[in-house]
Amino acid sequence: MSKLLEDINYPRDVQTLTNKELYKLSDEIREFLIDKVSKTGGHLSSNLGVVELTLSLYKTFNFEKDKIVWDVGHQTYVHKILTGRKDKFDTLRKYNGLCGFPKISESKYDTFGVGHSSTSISAALGIARARDIKHEDYNVIAVIGDGALTGGMALEALNDVGFNKTNMIIVLNDNQMSISKNVGGLSNHLNKLRLDHSYNKLKEDINSTLSNSNAGKTVVQYLHRVKDSLKHLLVPSMLFESMGIKYIGPIDGHNIELMNEVFSKAQEINGPVIIHTVTHKGKGYEFAEKNPNKFHGVSPFDLESGESYISSKKTYSKVFGDTMLELAEKNSDIVAITAAMPDGTGLKEFAQKYSNRFFDVGIAEEHATTLAAGMASAGLRPVFAVYSTFLQRAFDQVIHDVCIQNLPVVFAIDRAGIVGDDGETHQGVFDLSYLCAVPNMVVLAPKHLEELPIMLKWALKQNGPVAIRYPRGSDCCEELTAVKEIKYGKWEKIINGEKVAIIAVGKMVQHAMIARKELIKKGINPTIIGATFVKPIDTEMLKELVDEGYSIVTIEDNVINGGFGSYVLMELNRLNFKSKFKCLGFDDNFVPHGDVNLLYKDAGLDAEAIEKCVINILG
Amino acid sequence: MSKLLEDINYPRDVQTLTNKELYKLSDEIREFLIDKVSKTGGHLSSNLGVVELTLSLYKTFNFEKDKIVWDVGHQTYVHKILTGRKDKFDTLRKYNGLCGFPKISESKYDTFGVGHSSTSISAALGIARARDIKHEDYNVIAVIGDGALTGGMALEALNDVGFNKTNMIIVLNDNQMSISKNVGGLSNHLNKLRLDHSYNKLKEDINSTLSNSNAGKTVVQYLHRVKDSLKHLLVPSMLFESMGIKYIGPIDGHNIELMNEVFSKAQEINGPVIIHTVTHKGKGYEFAEKNPNKFHGVSPFDLESGESYISSKKTYSKVFGDTMLELAEKNSDIVAITAAMPDGTGLKEFAQKYSNRFFDVGIAEEHATTLAAGMASAGLRPVFAVYSTFLQRAFDQVIHDVCIQNLPVVFAIDRAGIVGDDGETHQGVFDLSYLCAVPNMVVLAPKHLEELPIMLKWALKQNGPVAIRYPRGSDCCEELTAVKEIKYGKWEKIINGEKVAIIAVGKMVQHAMIARKELIKKGINPTIIGATFVKPIDTEMLKELVDEGYSIVTIEDNVINGGFGSYVLMELNRLNFKSKFKCLGFDDNFVPHGDVNLLYKDAGLDAEAIEKCVINILG
Repeated sequence: MSKLLEDINYPRDVQTLTNKELYKLSDEIREFLIDKVSKTGGHLSSNLGVVELTLSLYKTFNFEKDKIVWDVGHQTYVHKILTGRKDKFDTLRKYNGLCGFPKISESKYDTFGVGHSSTSISAALGIARARDIKHEDYNVIAVIGDGALTGGMALEALNDVGFNKTNMIIVLNDNQMSISKNVGGLSNHLNKLRLDHSYNKLKEDINSTLSNSNAGKTVVQYLHRVKDSLKHLLVPSMLFESMGIKYIGPIDGHNIELMNEVFSKAQEINGPVIIHTVTHKGKGYEFAEKNPNKFHGVSPFDLESGESYISSKKTYSKVFGDTMLELAEKNSDIVAITAAMPDGTGLKEFAQKYSNRFFDVGIAEEHATTLAAGMASAGLRPVFAVYSTFLQRAFDQVIHDVCIQNLPVVFAIDRAGIVGDDGETHQGVFDLSYLCAVPNMVVLAPKHLEELPIMLKWALKQNGPVAIRYPRGSDCCEELTAVKEIKYGKWEKIINGEKVAIIAVGKMVQHAMIARKELIKKGINPTIIGATFVKPIDTEMLKELVDEGYSIVTIEDNVINGGFGSYVLMELNRLNFKSKFKCLGFDDNFVPHGDVNLLYKDAGLDAEAIEKCVINILG
Repeated sequence: MSKLLEDINYPRDVQTLTNKELYKLSDEIREFLIDKVSKTGGHLSSNLGVVELTLSLYKTFNFEKDKIVWDVGHQTYVHKILTGRKDKFDTLRKYNGLCGFPKISESKYDTFGVGHSSTSISAALGIARARDIKHEDYNVIAVIGDGALTGGMALEALNDVGFNKTNMIIVLNDNQMSISKNVGGLSNHLNKLRLDHSYNKLKEDINSTLSNSNAGKTVVQYLHRVKDSLKHLLVPSMLFESMGIKYIGPIDGHNIELMNEVFSKAQEINGPVIIHTVTHKGKGYEFAEKNPNKFHGVSPFDLESGESYISSKKTYSKVFGDTMLELAEKNSDIVAITAAMPDGTGLKEFAQKYSNRFFDVGIAEEHATTLAAGMASAGLRPVFAVYSTFLQRAFDQVIHDVCIQNLPVVFAIDRAGIVGDDGETHQGVFDLSYLCAVPNMVVLAPKHLEELPIMLKWALKQNGPVAIRYPRGSDCCEELTAVKEIKYGKWEKIINGEKVAIIAVGKMVQHAMIARKELIKKGINPTIIGATFVKPIDTEMLKELVDEGYSIVTIEDNVINGGFGSYVLMELNRLNFKSKFKCLGFDDNFVPHGDVNLLYKDAGLDAEAIEKCVINILG
């Protein structure tokens, strides 16, 4: 039997299918997704969960004019399949290939890019208001996960939506799980909605109504009638209704007929409406259903066993988690905070062993940071483990609540530098720029894995804020030894060479060491310095270099703008430096997705580029 | 009759007073506040509103051990009066004087500093969790305004509080108004709570119960009993209750007996509780009651007439607002967004004239930014008017939603540089550092008032994001003429002098011009350049200066770290510059409160310091 998927290239191709065909297409899409993602890696569970939801949206809306914003964007693989990008799935998340998130520049059907969570309602509301002001006519839909809904800006947006009664449809894709298990009062509320007897009964009623739909009672009419009569009993939905947003649900997010009916009727409702759909993450792939978390963002894996082909190398996240366990045992004031990333940040074991000292606040980096500040002000030693790109969300709280008050909060910044496959929305290339500008902030970067525990121990003894930033994954050069002792503001001279000094941040020390091997062959022996402290910089060591007439090269996996190199140069200017200076880092563009080694090469941050730079500066 | 206030110096002094005396003390405190603030300026309305609330808290809690976090901190004048700082009120908000916000370093009773809004629940929750982990015993209270509650991080915190059932008390100070009129679904919800018949009735019941309180029914017991029986009718409170937080209210925030009763009983409740108090901003001063907005943050004013002694000079905010009106008339795609600051940003008239193109989203800078991005993606020309210090809240949205997608959002950044009296939490000295690091962002700064309209017009014609940052207030040097035409990335050579070139950002051009007058007398004639564009910098003009052997001084009212000067120096290094370079800006400390001219002097950014710097560089 020929496959339906073969003929599906554009949204219109879905609209002509019967419900039966849509179910068949769902199966084919699942098979396609599992096959492709097993080879490329990517976000599997969330996409398996939204197959029917996406198909129903494409059946009932007209995306040649209607606009949809997906939150977060990693659940858009089905959307991408249905909008002309099916044949590019072999290049998913690869350099110059298909992006793992929606991207305006990739397709006209990607209305708005979403990599970080909780942005969709704001963006869709902006689009809907633009439509109204410009007297245009189309539907605007935001699809948001229950995890993303815990983000403050999503709640800010709900507040605005409800007040101004803008016409828009919010589809709450409730899979009872964000990246890790979902937390918070809001989650409890959704649980209640799902479990509340009245609601379950209502749901059955809807289903039976649907099966008798010739009787002329449409789901939405029915819901409205039932809801009015139950007005004072349907208490849980008041969370949304009290904010001025009509609520419909919960409905089965794998029941295409039901969703078709609800989505069609929702278009006729005046004002904002939220449709609560319940889906199952990982649906259709046994291993992912059992362990959706493991298949959230996955490396290439074996189809039969579900086992990932991943490197067995120790990661920075693992070392961080292990060190936290060790330190927490000795010091009961140490607590750990995560914003919905207990696994990704390596805190899974900590969460189990020290559950009373572990706080997963949901996708809420702002709250996490000020919570940490509050804890520090009352005598605890909080460590907020967070990805570099997500800490951007809490920049004001870093300034206002932590640094102004000089509180001893430790920021364990994972995925600093480039993360690779996730691309421009997730690269951690701004942290040095935004953190070093803030008074009282101290910033360290381990040059290899073994330095992270030493730095963490040091950080937990300081009386003010300390950020330790380290990369995703593991090391590429293992012949280094850890610095013996951390001294405030002091760098480490790793190799005492001549003429040129390479001052490198974090993992870039490893690139410098690899470059050195080739340089030595050419008779060039650069001094190599590990910038243990990115802030404050080691002015004494710089003075020595200036006095000895060194030329200087700085290397950082951060944007050059406002980065480490610019701090070094400002100090060199004070020291009346007259030799040559070159700063290597990412230039003033966003760094796309792809293999990190390709990206390093592209940016001139690989060993070869460093080698060339040193030769140039001497030439 | 002697005044009670004379003997009030510490929290314990309040605890012994009778309710009757507390009312008398309220009157005295109001008189004190009105008198003092009329001379110093400051936040009047909000403090007049919380007199009884604060006294009742001090009567019922023991702040020698209990901890309170005020949000926002400008409502802490009464708290300051009651905690040993009464005699310092003549120095309020003055250089080296009493801070206008709580500040850990100022008093042991200032548990946590709050300048920006919406942080109190997070901080208080952190303190409460620290207490529990450390097995300590004290109450933790967060006082939060209804405006502050619209901020996303407050909602993130509520989500966490409710889930983990931490013992803490949240006092919602509902004055039906944030800085400007409050907006949003949440506000509607609070209105409902206030107006709902059941609630008002309940309130009356409480009052009559209280007057018969010998009957043994305490308010809280009563409330609980009534609430249980009404469980399914008291729908509005479900917003909080559905998040797992017990709700009590609304209660009259000027009724000391009632509050005493509720606050006492609340200490016995297990788990988090929110107490909804309704207060009247400006209470007790006729002019402030009638126009609380005018007396929100006020300059010194005449007690009899309520009129402020303010300069009649045109401000940047006014010029911005006028220009927006003019541009909006010609281009119906232009829309304006504010996060609860329609007056402060100069958009009041715009809001009235173009109400359908004006969006006040509440205290929600994150949402505001992504809303703007959504609007821009759908063909509008949004202008987000925001204070520099508050845009810090939306740093991630600036990167992720606006700049990655290169969307034409204009950021009109008011209060850039130093704001003076509000101090370290409100100084706008980081924007150049955090904005210039972001790819695609273009940053301009008008050197004087008349350049703002020209820049705004230019910005609204670009195809990507543009930030225009300008200072609070007005100009100090008026002999400048506006640049004739804005050319992308081009600076303006204002004075063609010799040997030294001063490149100044925004208003700092005016300081340079004043310095020049003195330098000319000494036979020194520096070239003066207005850095129309802070990003991108004018590399061509820099090359000319290098070729001609100029020494270079940069001046910016931003921190030196990651600021304009560092960009200039990085380019000078590329150009093989060999002369002298000096960067003037704020060093790596937070800038305290005080008169802006004193602060400029302190930081070496006044004309005299510039003069010295130029003489030095030549010497």
